[in-house]
Amino acid sequence: MAIPAQSAGHERIVIEGVAPEVDAGRFPIKRTVGEKVVVEADAFVDGHDQLGCVLHYRKAGATKWGEVSMRPLGNDRWRGEFSVREIGRYGYTITAWVDHFRTWRAELEKREQPTDVALALLIGAELIEAAAARTTIPHTAQLRLHARELRAERDPFARRLLALDPELARLMARFPDRTLETRYERELTVVVDEARAGYSTWYELFPRSCVHDPGAHGSLRSCEERLPYIASMGFDVLYLPPIHPIGMTARKGRNNALSADEDDPGSPWAIGSEAGGHKAVHPRLGTLEDLRHLVGRAREHGLEVALDIAFQCSPDHPYVEQSPRWFRWRPDGSVQYAENPPKKYQDIYPLNFETEDRQGLWEELRDVFLFWIEQGVHIFRVDNPHTKPFPFWEWLITDIKSKHPEVIFLAEAFTRPKVMHRLAKLGFTQSYTYFTWRNSKSELTDYFTELTQTPAREYFRPNLWPNTPDILHEYLQVGGRPAFMIRLVLAATLGANYGVYGPAFELYEATPRERGSEEYLSSEKFEIRAWDVERPDSLEHFIARVNQIRHQNEALQHDWSLCFHPVDNEALLCYSKHSDALDNVILVVVNIDPHHTRAGWVELPLEELQLLPDHPYQVHDLLSDTRYLWQGARNYVELDPHAAPAHIFRLRRHVRTERDFDYFI
Amino acid sequence: MAIPAQSAGHERIVIEGVAPEVDAGRFPIKRTVGEKVVVEADAFVDGHDQLGCVLHYRKAGATKWGEVSMRPLGNDRWRGEFSVREIGRYGYTITAWVDHFRTWRAELEKREQPTDVALALLIGAELIEAAAARTTIPHTAQLRLHARELRAERDPFARRLLALDPELARLMARFPDRTLETRYERELTVVVDEARAGYSTWYELFPRSCVHDPGAHGSLRSCEERLPYIASMGFDVLYLPPIHPIGMTARKGRNNALSADEDDPGSPWAIGSEAGGHKAVHPRLGTLEDLRHLVGRAREHGLEVALDIAFQCSPDHPYVEQSPRWFRWRPDGSVQYAENPPKKYQDIYPLNFETEDRQGLWEELRDVFLFWIEQGVHIFRVDNPHTKPFPFWEWLITDIKSKHPEVIFLAEAFTRPKVMHRLAKLGFTQSYTYFTWRNSKSELTDYFTELTQTPAREYFRPNLWPNTPDILHEYLQVGGRPAFMIRLVLAATLGANYGVYGPAFELYEATPRERGSEEYLSSEKFEIRAWDVERPDSLEHFIARVNQIRHQNEALQHDWSLCFHPVDNEALLCYSKHSDALDNVILVVVNIDPHHTRAGWVELPLEELQLLPDHPYQVHDLLSDTRYLWQGARNYVELDPHAAPAHIFRLRRHVRTERDFDYFI
Repeated sequence: MAIPAQSAGHERIVIEGVAPEVDAGRFPIKRTVGEKVVVEADAFVDGHDQLGCVLHYRKAGATKWGEVSMRPLGNDRWRGEFSVREIGRYGYTITAWVDHFRTWRAELEKREQPTDVALALLIGAELIEAAAARTTIPHTAQLRLHARELRAERDPFARRLLALDPELARLMARFPDRTLETRYERELTVVVDEARAGYSTWYELFPRSCVHDPGAHGSLRSCEERLPYIASMGFDVLYLPPIHPIGMTARKGRNNALSADEDDPGSPWAIGSEAGGHKAVHPRLGTLEDLRHLVGRAREHGLEVALDIAFQCSPDHPYVEQSPRWFRWRPDGSVQYAENPPKKYQDIYPLNFETEDRQGLWEELRDVFLFWIEQGVHIFRVDNPHTKPFPFWEWLITDIKSKHPEVIFLAEAFTRPKVMHRLAKLGFTQSYTYFTWRNSKSELTDYFTELTQTPAREYFRPNLWPNTPDILHEYLQVGGRPAFMIRLVLAATLGANYGVYGPAFELYEATPRERGSEEYLSSEKFEIRAWDVERPDSLEHFIARVNQIRHQNEALQHDWSLCFHPVDNEALLCYSKHSDALDNVILVVVNIDPHHTRAGWVELPLEELQLLPDHPYQVHDLLSDTRYLWQGARNYVELDPHAAPAHIFRLRRHVRTERDFDYFI
Repeated sequence: MAIPAQSAGHERIVIEGVAPEVDAGRFPIKRTVGEKVVVEADAFVDGHDQLGCVLHYRKAGATKWGEVSMRPLGNDRWRGEFSVREIGRYGYTITAWVDHFRTWRAELEKREQPTDVALALLIGAELIEAAAARTTIPHTAQLRLHARELRAERDPFARRLLALDPELARLMARFPDRTLETRYERELTVVVDEARAGYSTWYELFPRSCVHDPGAHGSLRSCEERLPYIASMGFDVLYLPPIHPIGMTARKGRNNALSADEDDPGSPWAIGSEAGGHKAVHPRLGTLEDLRHLVGRAREHGLEVALDIAFQCSPDHPYVEQSPRWFRWRPDGSVQYAENPPKKYQDIYPLNFETEDRQGLWEELRDVFLFWIEQGVHIFRVDNPHTKPFPFWEWLITDIKSKHPEVIFLAEAFTRPKVMHRLAKLGFTQSYTYFTWRNSKSELTDYFTELTQTPAREYFRPNLWPNTPDILHEYLQVGGRPAFMIRLVLAATLGANYGVYGPAFELYEATPRERGSEEYLSSEKFEIRAWDVERPDSLEHFIARVNQIRHQNEALQHDWSLCFHPVDNEALLCYSKHSDALDNVILVVVNIDPHHTRAGWVELPLEELQLLPDHPYQVHDLLSDTRYLWQGARNYVELDPHAAPAHIFRLRRHVRTERDFDYFI
């Protein structure tokens, strides 16, 4: 076998075990603007030589790399970090080299024989002179002076002292010999999203239900009247189910009936009629102009409008006539309606992604997003992405974000875990999760540990939904108002991104279509509901308070610091989150039993929270504005779900002033 | 952005998370002849289509792939396996495709409307006819018949029964439409070694010490006289430290003295003199012919001779004059002697792998191995591989194994973990470990769980050494004879590959050169020792018994089944190993306190060991030939290190004969 040619890099060095890195660099990691990327890697060389190691990073398209030192963590592991300041893509990689001067210096310290020391000093002088040749005045002169000192005719041990001068080491570190450096084989990618991709609070509503009177049909204009109400609850994304024309053929009636009455509005997901398809607004909802107006008014209230993009068609959709090749025709000339087992959508045709007109179909669907982006929308909830091919989404999202990097795609894929992860890897900004079905203490602990403490967090950004128009979990059906409060606190504090489907949520609508079903009775999917949002028992103010707490506490605006703490009661869940600097620590205790008062002893890791075992500290319940003085690791909590099912404590550590006048920060 | 062209494969399918796979396929996994390769992967597709999935494998160089079905494990995970029957390299990879017939069949089962069923039957008939076209008589005819039945003018539900015929499903499974199959992007590699690579028992000895009288110099011929003794202890590898001429310049004296007396033999690792270098035999040890003779005689005793290859030179080595470019010359015209901190080798020059004559050096060193392979040696212990470049070893081992795939390379790298792992990845067959320094219960449990239960086991094959000529651990220094028995049992039962340095081991030589040192007093590295191997207190028979137990119990010939079990005494270590079929289960209990009797309750996982909680079972101590009747998970053990510091139990489960005459197998 031929001896491999010595590569351009320094072949002796190995760089491996780089983290974060998704599937050997096949997929990017995700960050939001201003966040840090902390990179670790193993870098090592045969023998005993010492290494230098740097992290490179650059905005995509930039020719010049930024460079920061990586520091050794022990066991050949190195760590460095950089911040991503702009939306878009960044690249990062690693370089290491043998640091001959540092290696030489470490060996020199151990030499004991005068002849060995003298010889080592000559070698050191050569290294310093080589560095001098790599730089310019005044460093050249300075280094040459050092080299001369090492060669001087003096006692070698005296010269060794000069050689070990830390000033010289610092100077040499500035001019390493990197001609034989090793570059890591891959350039890895970070997709940087706008801040809302990492911290957002969603409110879903059917604009056609923005009515006061039963029997009326709401519109984008009547939806504007709700904006102050929604904004006052602290939401920042207003998400609308499909706003397009709805088909008449096979239209569903109330409660998913197979035939509709004349005045039944049909399902907004049965998209398309003679009035238009995915680029049109339902005539009764209004016009494109109305949408642009709503987007602008919402923004004045701090709300971004998100649209639902569902790639499927009513039999009346213009595509069916215009591009029959986009559908799969059966031997009898019909199209099999869509299914998402066990759900059946008799009013919907799926698109056929195995069409011969791949180019036409893909481009048209991409243009649907571009169309709405032109109207001012830049957040999209994507319906059932898991029933379309992965390469389609990867191409579409990459293409759109290359021109509109601010766009946020939320994947509504309630499917098998690996499919959900694939969609997140290939580009979806946020992902629906199984939170909706995780209700017990162990389920919540296991699932959120997985979501926030494994490498999947690099690409999978959870967005938690206690309810959706499709899902009314049994826990909410039987738990009453406390159950809604509990699920709200969990969603809002376990996830930096969460959303509710309202007004069903704040009015704790809880009646299923039938026993054992997760469908709502009188679901808004099939009829217009005139909600009384001013009902005095509404959760409006509770939601507003929780969202205000999120807004005021950085700890709740990120996911990765989540840590669960033991409580000796299976119905009590306790966890904390904190800011990077630990100056904001939130401790949540939730009674997940919506029926009974539960009490127990919470156990905190004092050291990690920078608490002293023998000093009291304050826990300030931001929900009730009550303060408790705790001490030590174990403290008592008791929660009555009918009064307040949760504490959201801000931890206030004990400090002293110069005058020993105690207070809490 | 351009729409990606539809690839040759079926782009909808994802194959990922393949295991085993080392560093995204950069390095091969390892097996021995006859072992299985169990491969798992995630394979999934968008939507609800069902997949077929196969594992491919082939001997390197073969053009045709073998193919075995993979079976679904749930959660989109698949598993298949193949056996490697020949020494050399194998490739493996995975293919998946959408199984339209199975998808169709599963949907057909759910259809309820007669018109839906009738339509589905037509589609099914088309699928069956397509399959008929893919095959030949008699299957073509058979399938066409099935298709006709599905199209017949009969009640659709009656036809559905025929369509769901399992016989038809089996037939269709034989002729899937794989034109759009997806191939995993990588072809992965298995290096298959001879059986001894996975199960071997090493005995290291200095042939020059094969003498009866102090002052004599042993030889390869006198070493032959020891063969019956070594073989009777159950060893199958006889490993010799370097057998080459030893330099005179800077020769070390007894106990590592900086100057040697005239009759000091010098260190065998100070290789080379005017008598020759790495391809020569030390004149006092004998001739090349003597080595070949020893290799042949050893083989008659079931022993393979292993040589130590140490790439370093005495200042008198012929290389120094012939190829001065292979050394790094200092400004004063000298060469810095070798160091492996804190050890100093004043009698040894390291080779300079940054030489300009890379081609010459690499080829010469490779030829050293080839030279000894020609003499009949095919096992090599490689000295300090971590001080030579990684690419050198990767090239050398790959090159040699391409012609001599049976060759075994043992890496003697006692260095940082990641460097040791890299050497194992790039091709070393076996690796020294930290076992020598792991003595407490938690150290042993943690370390062996890491070695045997993490993915690193795919490439890192441990070889355990309780002692070496370099390392006399403090545990052995203070623990006396019981300590040697304990460490022997641990090495022999925790590792399928282990070795001892004898006769120092069986004569439990335990005096260090000085307090705090791991060096032997009167180390054989620097002087000849006339061992009295017939001493009545020798551990010879104990070692023979332990090795016989290894030989008779398949459980001890592999590493991966290792499982630790709780014992309520910090000095008692309990673990089991078993054969794949669970017909051989070995349970080891070791008292790691060499001074005191220790007792405790062992706790076994009954179900995993296929034991019934209410049936007694026998544990048969193969060391003492004593049998105990145990019942349930918890049982009492007591071990006096001065009598017997360990049990090596064979588990004998309770069975009944036809005549209800109880006995144990």
